[in-house]
Amino acid sequence: MKVNDLRVKDIGEFSLIERLVEVLGPTARGAGQGVIRGIGDDAAILQNSPGTRILASCDMLLEGRHFDLSYSSPRQLGWKALAVNLSDIAAMGGRPRWALVNLGLRPELKVSLVEEIYAGIAELAEEHGVIVVGGDTCSSPGQLIIDICILGEASRSGIAYRSGAMENDMILVTGNLGKSAAGLAYLRGKMQLQLEPDDREELLGAHLRPVPRVKEASLLIRSGMVNAMNDISDGLASELHEIVQASGCGARIWAERLPLSPSTIKMANSIGVNPLEWALYGGEDYELLLTIPGSKGSPLRVRRLSNSLKRATGTSLSLIGRILPFPGVELVYPDGRVEPLAQGGYNHFKNSAT
Amino acid sequence: MKVNDLRVKDIGEFSLIERLVEVLGPTARGAGQGVIRGIGDDAAILQNSPGTRILASCDMLLEGRHFDLSYSSPRQLGWKALAVNLSDIAAMGGRPRWALVNLGLRPELKVSLVEEIYAGIAELAEEHGVIVVGGDTCSSPGQLIIDICILGEASRSGIAYRSGAMENDMILVTGNLGKSAAGLAYLRGKMQLQLEPDDREELLGAHLRPVPRVKEASLLIRSGMVNAMNDISDGLASELHEIVQASGCGARIWAERLPLSPSTIKMANSIGVNPLEWALYGGEDYELLLTIPGSKGSPLRVRRLSNSLKRATGTSLSLIGRILPFPGVELVYPDGRVEPLAQGGYNHFKNSAT
Repeated sequence: MKVNDLRVKDIGEFSLIERLVEVLGPTARGAGQGVIRGIGDDAAILQNSPGTRILASCDMLLEGRHFDLSYSSPRQLGWKALAVNLSDIAAMGGRPRWALVNLGLRPELKVSLVEEIYAGIAELAEEHGVIVVGGDTCSSPGQLIIDICILGEASRSGIAYRSGAMENDMILVTGNLGKSAAGLAYLRGKMQLQLEPDDREELLGAHLRPVPRVKEASLLIRSGMVNAMNDISDGLASELHEIVQASGCGARIWAERLPLSPSTIKMANSIGVNPLEWALYGGEDYELLLTIPGSKGSPLRVRRLSNSLKRATGTSLSLIGRILPFPGVELVYPDGRVEPLAQGGYNHFKNSAT
Repeated sequence: MKVNDLRVKDIGEFSLIERLVEVLGPTARGAGQGVIRGIGDDAAILQNSPGTRILASCDMLLEGRHFDLSYSSPRQLGWKALAVNLSDIAAMGGRPRWALVNLGLRPELKVSLVEEIYAGIAELAEEHGVIVVGGDTCSSPGQLIIDICILGEASRSGIAYRSGAMENDMILVTGNLGKSAAGLAYLRGKMQLQLEPDDREELLGAHLRPVPRVKEASLLIRSGMVNAMNDISDGLASELHEIVQASGCGARIWAERLPLSPSTIKMANSIGVNPLEWALYGGEDYELLLTIPGSKGSPLRVRRLSNSLKRATGTSLSLIGRILPFPGVELVYPDGRVEPLAQGGYNHFKNSAT
């Protein structure tokens, strides 16, 4: 049998785990990084930094629902499975520290494919100093399942809740919106004209290998200005509704202020979609949505914050709206029309029923 | 539409989560239990007790692999999904505190079934003061998936590693072995004679609704005697091999000392299986396997420990063997024969390939 043809069922759970630990390399060894005991006992033993609180979140990627191995390389998949989790810790203002990786694998899967998934996890973990401290690997009769649980820490004063938005706050968003949805549309073959290679790479990258805004979130929190923050996993409209509902207020955003990349606009035009749809409801952008206090001198403060974020991380920051005292979210169109913005966004089950 | 016919796809993710939080009741509200923020933000925010270390573990249950809804009620399933996780924290000597519950649900599943799963989780969580602080709920095109991540805490000196076994240690086990496998055999319809109702309930209970040995583990750790500990999820043979491999030693156990319930023996006899097989390789017993120092006066100490465990929890403790200085595990048969004991036990992928 060629090494490359080796299947999961040929080697058994314990040998597979040994190989995966090998692939993880330094990201499975956490000496001095708060890991008292990592992979290899009934539970990991961890030590958070003095005075910090623990952040915990899980996100599951399911084959046939969240990914398709004909679109996504196994390495991209591993990267994305960790990225969506890091994004949740970032959105709270935390520092991601430890991950537990659960895999459900068809016995017929190639071992090399599973190793590639782990290589993707390791690549992103290393970038953020995250240690893989455990998990569960078992055989799945059906789908490929990747479920990561992420643990992080944050100082008591450095946590951003989604419930902290205040009347008059300015609403900001990092990066561009709708790129992930544009990339997915491309992958699904709705493409009617050739995209420039650079545009294609940008859109596919946004969908298949999203970059969690961990450094950006940390810098924004350190500015001391953030009142509320969310990551945009389910689309801007949905996330903004979550912030205003949790905060007991409302919001108005301006359509023409929503940051769209030229690549997204080209892709949308080429298939006759309004790119606003993707920006508002596309989801999976993993950008940060935040509010900071609004007052006289606000535009200057936003400009300063935006400049320092751009300098430090290369990521842009756009002012897209205002927090209002009354419930609901309004969208102001370029022609001045104001309409209520439905929560919409990606909602599991409902979408899948259509 | 009758309320009972409501499907997951009819109500959407957000309404489903609201209903599930309702079912969790007090086990989703953790004020004063180290929960700064539970369900409802990007991540949970937790505060461990001063001076403790954090324990973290995940275990996934997959339909068609770990459970079958024609055997198991949804409530039992929820209970078991949490129980196997509590068992991991117990085996480290820890106190389970917070759980994150990830569900992959077919859109056609009845909402009432999902609520019952949560009722099972809530029942066991309440018993142990565990708070459900988050998770991920998404639609699964294939199997039903329940993946729980458990967080606990332990004092620095109160942690039991599987690597702590020492030469001459006595090997002990709580409760009875092989009951879960006997229960599964019954469920799979290999039953050739009627079991007494009490026996049947005992075996089915062991398989479908295992009781994690959290109190037992805590009491054993407090005795100060435990050198190494594991929970028996993959069968005694496999877990004992893990302890001796991690500890750099070996072990000898006596077949006639392995604790078997009369119900297990009756079930085994009725279908012509050697109950030792179930005790050694059956798995899913979730009993504790531990070692304590052996020396003169050991039998008396074991008797005292066993008596106090029985008094406090109703659970028995059996001396089944000794730690040896050289590698490998030996089984001594009633006739004095000594044979090497294969690691065997439940090994994902390999088993599923046969």
